[in-house]
Amino acid sequence: MKAHGQPTRSLWPDAAGDALWVIDQRALPHGWRTERLSTVAQVREAIADMWVRGAPLIGVSAAYGLALQCQVDAGDAALAAAKSLLDGARPTAVNLAWATARLLGALQALPMAQRRAAAWALAGQMADEDVAVNAAIGHHGLALLQALAARHPDRPLNVLTHCNAGWLATVDWGTALAPIYQAQAAGLALHVWVDETRPRNQGASLTAWELGQQGVPHTVIADNTGGHLMQHGQVDIVLVGADRVSACGDVCNKIGTYLKALAAQDNGVPFYAAVPLSTIDLSLLDGVAQIPIEARSPREVTHLSGLAADGRVLEVQLTPTGTQALNLGFDVTPARLVSGLITERGVVAAQEAALQALLG
Amino acid sequence: MKAHGQPTRSLWPDAAGDALWVIDQRALPHGWRTERLSTVAQVREAIADMWVRGAPLIGVSAAYGLALQCQVDAGDAALAAAKSLLDGARPTAVNLAWATARLLGALQALPMAQRRAAAWALAGQMADEDVAVNAAIGHHGLALLQALAARHPDRPLNVLTHCNAGWLATVDWGTALAPIYQAQAAGLALHVWVDETRPRNQGASLTAWELGQQGVPHTVIADNTGGHLMQHGQVDIVLVGADRVSACGDVCNKIGTYLKALAAQDNGVPFYAAVPLSTIDLSLLDGVAQIPIEARSPREVTHLSGLAADGRVLEVQLTPTGTQALNLGFDVTPARLVSGLITERGVVAAQEAALQALLG
Repeated sequence: MKAHGQPTRSLWPDAAGDALWVIDQRALPHGWRTERLSTVAQVREAIADMWVRGAPLIGVSAAYGLALQCQVDAGDAALAAAKSLLDGARPTAVNLAWATARLLGALQALPMAQRRAAAWALAGQMADEDVAVNAAIGHHGLALLQALAARHPDRPLNVLTHCNAGWLATVDWGTALAPIYQAQAAGLALHVWVDETRPRNQGASLTAWELGQQGVPHTVIADNTGGHLMQHGQVDIVLVGADRVSACGDVCNKIGTYLKALAAQDNGVPFYAAVPLSTIDLSLLDGVAQIPIEARSPREVTHLSGLAADGRVLEVQLTPTGTQALNLGFDVTPARLVSGLITERGVVAAQEAALQALLG
Repeated sequence: MKAHGQPTRSLWPDAAGDALWVIDQRALPHGWRTERLSTVAQVREAIADMWVRGAPLIGVSAAYGLALQCQVDAGDAALAAAKSLLDGARPTAVNLAWATARLLGALQALPMAQRRAAAWALAGQMADEDVAVNAAIGHHGLALLQALAARHPDRPLNVLTHCNAGWLATVDWGTALAPIYQAQAAGLALHVWVDETRPRNQGASLTAWELGQQGVPHTVIADNTGGHLMQHGQVDIVLVGADRVSACGDVCNKIGTYLKALAAQDNGVPFYAAVPLSTIDLSLLDGVAQIPIEARSPREVTHLSGLAADGRVLEVQLTPTGTQALNLGFDVTPARLVSGLITERGVVAAQEAALQALLG
């Protein structure tokens, strides 16, 4: 999608084939910084410190991390250590371990001499596949949005989204935002309510930036606001991404998603998660009980960065000095609150039998 | 309650009897500033710009505003104009118009020469009554907390609160925090989850500051976090204040309260609002449809103030330049989600018959 008017992916290989370029998303929305990563340790740092974030994007980034490892030592022990290093960078998203396992499995079948080139090619293929998967999610989600919009031909369709599941969270298109971008391209009138998404404000910074760059009408709201809007008929659909989906359809996504799903149910508003099939973890039977929830630094709650009047990006302290804070990254929305999952193979019910049929 | 170790009220009359002192709460938690208000216009500004906030406190502040008007012109027309000016400062809380109507009604029965002294005395009486009412709310709420704590004698009771319904929102004690302060005094082990309460962060700033000054254990969380905590048994009760309660028990409180009430119901966690009877508006039958919701400046969503590393309090911009935002101050929690109301006359069901019996 567009950054500063130019079609852009969220990562791309260096032309020399020996490094990965990423957008350091921490600089958004007030700046623009790209970084060249040439070692697996740098890729791990970029994932752990959220230069790159979003389940699909960290999966492809980690695949490139393994490919970079192959340039130094493509032996089984070195690759296993690199996989372990990368997988530990973020604990919640399943795509990360899925991507490294896929790349590692392919490499282990190859003689050492072929691994370096094969790894680089496969990482690139996984990036392209992510783009294709998200385009397909957008296609299926568009049909859903068109059907909803047909009920209210007199006004724009109001979509509420939480966090950033846009192109910055993937290689391109995004998951939850892919249907929105395709709706815009199809001429469907819509407006997006963008949850700020504390504590890291991925909505107010990344989603608002994405939608602004693309020219999609949107309004940023505090995370507290969606319930009231749904009570008053101002939300037609809640559309979010997911970091992991359990076998029965429980949706693990950015903390606060569960609260919006409750409000959606209470007000008869459809609630959909847009997810590539790689996000579905059939090994998990009970999402609420079993999905590990990442605890991040309390400083992300007690402090916040923004653009000061003098043009500098500064961090300010919000709480009294010494205040304790807890910073959990995700929550799990039980499948009973999920109207459906938008996947690259179509819209599916958040139910075990339906997911198994789709994946089978 | 305590500020810097000293017992403090949130407002007090000047010893000379010709002005009102308030804490400019905008300076908290990083500074401490008191202001002397000597005209009704200054009181209006202090209410509208939230130097003072919280339904009970703005009611008493407005009463003092009318008393200040009497020092200039205590005629009926001047008082009616002053009441109108004050009532328009904030549209949602019912205590404001309740307090000014009460003072005005008392004054209109008096000859002009007695009004100035009577107004000052009655405003002071209303301040003292607020303290007594909140102490009684604390007393009844304490019994509720003790009963809940008895179920888990092995660990502290976990209370989640939203916004600031502490002594800073009243003259003293607070409403939702009064039971907590009394529980602390009674030696009950408890811990408070403090919702940050975007966009103005009254939780992260005011409630965290209050609890810190008083030595009550607490942890600040993003507003998105409470649902997850309730899913995992880490919240024993949700305890909030209210700006207005409808005849059937719908609770209007800071935006986002409704989302916590939904999560409480979904997880079997009791949800109580602590409210003086003056907050109950029997003229409103349907809170969701009828209570006017204040829309404030979008800048409170797009920008945020905090303490910079150099010790200055600075405002920073969170969203991309030019981003639209919507800033609604309150939402309404339907009575069906409310376990009960803690009033100065005891705990009552959020039901029309129960409220009428209590007020009758």
